Amino acid sequence: MEDREISRAVIGRLPRYYRYLGELLDEGVERISSSDLSKKMHVTASQIRQDLNNFGGFGQQGYGYNVKYLHTEIGKILGLSHTHNIIIIGAGNLGQALANYGGFEKSGFILKGIFDVNPRLEGVTIRGIPIRRMDELRSFIRHHEIEIAALTIPKSKAVEVADILVEGGIQGIWNFAHTDLILPENVIVESVHLADSLLKLSYNISSYNHESEK
Amino acid sequence: MEDREISRAVIGRLPRYYRYLGELLDEGVERISSSDLSKKMHVTASQIRQDLNNFGGFGQQGYGYNVKYLHTEIGKILGLSHTHNIIIIGAGNLGQALANYGGFEKSGFILKGIFDVNPRLEGVTIRGIPIRRMDELRSFIRHHEIEIAALTIPKSKAVEVADILVEGGIQGIWNFAHTDLILPENVIVESVHLADSLLKLSYNISSYNHESEK
Repeated sequence: MEDREISRAVIGRLPRYYRYLGELLDEGVERISSSDLSKKMHVTASQIRQDLNNFGGFGQQGYGYNVKYLHTEIGKILGLSHTHNIIIIGAGNLGQALANYGGFEKSGFILKGIFDVNPRLEGVTIRGIPIRRMDELRSFIRHHEIEIAALTIPKSKAVEVADILVEGGIQGIWNFAHTDLILPENVIVESVHLADSLLKLSYNISSYNHESEK
Repeated sequence: MEDREISRAVIGRLPRYYRYLGELLDEGVERISSSDLSKKMHVTASQIRQDLNNFGGFGQQGYGYNVKYLHTEIGKILGLSHTHNIIIIGAGNLGQALANYGGFEKSGFILKGIFDVNPRLEGVTIRGIPIRRMDELRSFIRHHEIEIAALTIPKSKAVEVADILVEGGIQGIWNFAHTDLILPENVIVESVHLADSLLKLSYNISSYNHESEK
């Protein structure tokens, strides 16, 4: 594959392509035309062709896309050609929800440990994985080659824990704490701000009602 | 306030302004200059001025922004000048995490009910709210003027339940199911695709490592 710059907008759409192609694979579909994929994904066929052309000629005139091949190639671009060791910090409801979601392992994200600030939870297991104390965190990251930490703790603790993760050598933080983490550029942060998302929904409802009243 | 078109990009940034202003309020800060707000939020002062100018002259030369006023005005734009009745469908870990998060009530999202497809959960309470059976859903939406439903159920059930919500007259769906919901345009959908977000993190880590090796 050519090594060229891919736009941020295309990158942002890749996980969705990967998801739809994965569903097609599960349904046993071997190939699909860009127009059928377009109907399924509710984007234009020309958008799909343009996006996927960024990665060389996956599609063939009159044949369409080979689902398995395209799924694998997009997976490689997304960094899924090797597995990623992951830990969860915060064993509350949200941490447990992530721990119990099997879909991540299917994509190669291997849950290696769960940590919580509450020492009373030490040794309690989730899906067979014991909850550990925070003072083990730094050495655990090194010894188990942990790449990603999901942070499902309140914002009051998030900055302090993020600093420990950075010192431990973490590569990425999947941040659910309701705060922005400002970290060195070699640590990638992807934040899921649930409250921001609910406010966007609220805005769109108000805005729709406002338009309808005009 | 003038009734003019506000760009999608500005709208997308509003929840973050609202969050930072809320934090300043909690800290007892009454006013802030655009340059101080800029340092706090890690965006340029000119971006802040441009964004907030969309809503009329909140800022005053030599004074800065009145935190409480700006927070209230942005809240109005986000549809927070009235409360929103919300239900959660799916009483698993993720549904419970949402139910237990008090921050939503603070912003005026009032949790009125929790539903689950598992009839054995009927009557179990979360934060004092009993879990109800799905066959009560449609009438509950009407009788309790429910505006928003958070959907924290597996994708296999999501489409079917979304149809019931639409028939019941729901205005917005906060969708956590790992699928895109295609609904009539009067029902606003805001999706939180956790797996897509994890793939974006994975892409950014791979891409950073790839750049560093060059």
